[in-house]
Amino acid sequence: MAPAASPGKQRTPLDPDSPDSIRMSESEATRLGLDALARVGFLPDEARIIVDQLVDNALCGYKFAGLPRILAIAGDWKTGKRRLPVRVVHETPVSATLDGGNNVGYIAAYRAAEVAAAKARKSGIAAVGAYNSYFSGRNAYYVERIVKDGLFAFHTASGQPHVLPPGAAAPALGTNPICFGFPSSEGAVIVDFGTAAIMWGEVMLHARLGQALPVGTGFDQHGAPSTDAQAVLCGGVAAFGGHKGYALSLAIQAMGVLAGARLGRDQALDYGFFFIALDPDILLPAGDFARQMSEFVRAIKATPRQSGVDEIRIPSERAFRERERRRVEGIVLERKVVEALQAL
Amino acid sequence: MAPAASPGKQRTPLDPDSPDSIRMSESEATRLGLDALARVGFLPDEARIIVDQLVDNALCGYKFAGLPRILAIAGDWKTGKRRLPVRVVHETPVSATLDGGNNVGYIAAYRAAEVAAAKARKSGIAAVGAYNSYFSGRNAYYVERIVKDGLFAFHTASGQPHVLPPGAAAPALGTNPICFGFPSSEGAVIVDFGTAAIMWGEVMLHARLGQALPVGTGFDQHGAPSTDAQAVLCGGVAAFGGHKGYALSLAIQAMGVLAGARLGRDQALDYGFFFIALDPDILLPAGDFARQMSEFVRAIKATPRQSGVDEIRIPSERAFRERERRRVEGIVLERKVVEALQAL
Repeated sequence: MAPAASPGKQRTPLDPDSPDSIRMSESEATRLGLDALARVGFLPDEARIIVDQLVDNALCGYKFAGLPRILAIAGDWKTGKRRLPVRVVHETPVSATLDGGNNVGYIAAYRAAEVAAAKARKSGIAAVGAYNSYFSGRNAYYVERIVKDGLFAFHTASGQPHVLPPGAAAPALGTNPICFGFPSSEGAVIVDFGTAAIMWGEVMLHARLGQALPVGTGFDQHGAPSTDAQAVLCGGVAAFGGHKGYALSLAIQAMGVLAGARLGRDQALDYGFFFIALDPDILLPAGDFARQMSEFVRAIKATPRQSGVDEIRIPSERAFRERERRRVEGIVLERKVVEALQAL
Repeated sequence: MAPAASPGKQRTPLDPDSPDSIRMSESEATRLGLDALARVGFLPDEARIIVDQLVDNALCGYKFAGLPRILAIAGDWKTGKRRLPVRVVHETPVSATLDGGNNVGYIAAYRAAEVAAAKARKSGIAAVGAYNSYFSGRNAYYVERIVKDGLFAFHTASGQPHVLPPGAAAPALGTNPICFGFPSSEGAVIVDFGTAAIMWGEVMLHARLGQALPVGTGFDQHGAPSTDAQAVLCGGVAAFGGHKGYALSLAIQAMGVLAGARLGRDQALDYGFFFIALDPDILLPAGDFARQMSEFVRAIKATPRQSGVDEIRIPSERAFRERERRRVEGIVLERKVVEALQAL
């Protein structure tokens, strides 16, 4: 009853008792990640920002969005290119545009979220864009940080083309996730999903394992429907939910343009991280929103259920429960991943 | 290739040469609507706001979102209740919360859009909420008005429960449309869609015509899947796009709360119109966004096509083309609708 697993968010549990698995505490996993990123050339502050998210993703149960991403970061051609500190190239009291300086999105989007929250606390609302960057991981992570300040947050990320518009024979849109975060008296409520019918990482995984993709999700390099993951890697995937999903993906790509995605010139032209942070008190004074949001969530959860259904799920609820549990039980990593990280 | 027709937006063309149809110019249709609304008790200014949208909807090809809506407005129990002028109950330089005064959404959302645009022009960005209202028609109409000021607009509308969360046996969410509008050098680009798998008006239409609903869209009063439109009227419908659509619908309902939906007390508790308007110059100075947005649209349209596909469609493109054509050719209305409007 929770949103369908996506590759970035895949929740296949590892068997903690298998000799192929290693169980680690939060701090052990953090240490492993920091050391690996240091060897890849990241400064301690940068590594800390990246690892804090990756460990949080792992705690929330998003296995492939955890420490294995360090291998992807290390292997990305952009990581090898020169990077400059993320900097504000334009700002007003209610906005900022950040040049990501070819830093990985984990850092650029983190900075953008920080600026959005600070400006919204001061001005009531703020819009922030960041460009000249690349993959940023799990949007809910940034949004939860903003929400912890008592703010509403809206965040989209546009990326390189993997999604075909209806009728197209080639991809033109990113997998373009969208995320909303709401403070409530009982904690953050986060809605976070990608707008592709299947996540790109899942296509890569299926290709590696030689597995067929679900019918209707993929297209080959000529734009013909295909379930052959290897062929789809040379083509692309559909948006989720038909024409509505396409329309949403296009809007997210356009918000990426607003965030500066087309300012990259000879650099990344597709990645645009867009944030709006808003203090709910500017609309509902006296902290009423958090209380009303809790009431709303309780009302949804109290909806009569179909027989055999234990509970009506609220997005992000399962992930946050799992995080509490894993903080005690630890994170389980594949031994091969740990060894690969140690060998970096 | 355009977003699937929804009842509010149904595009089934009427045969203009049928004796059951009447062709009218834009001004004739406007006159008909104004006179009908005057008889229902609307002041001239109010009637003008409503009819301007309804005629625009008809011009854009959304037949059931046109003048027939006056019959629905006249028949709604809320229209018979006392109404007060829409008023700002809370505001800051970057926000406003509007009590809709039990006015129909066509008026309350119109006022909210006006305030959002005015504040965004002055402050760079603004968030506006409106509550204590009811159905507001076609979101793209308000958003296009904001975009005509050169602004980016984001708009959601929450409404009374018709959509079942996954696993629920009763509806808990509105059909909750979401809309994004972007200025470009070649005019507005608007993304506008409802988050229900099928529009509520379409369920009503199927029930009246005794037609079966598409499999997987409807649930009866016990939450069991049903294609019987009459049974679904006592139950509800699914969100589009599975769990992602549910998550999006929940976020829109929560933005409705932010817009004041739970302030209505003994009045409407569900309708919340939420707007964000943003001057793109606060992120990309010197009017660069409109130019870059045009480039982006051209790039999407230039995507290689599957054989037999004439063009890659951009959301809102077809509607705006149709509007140009109908401004010349006129609007076609069912004779029965015209007679019913004249008989109000």
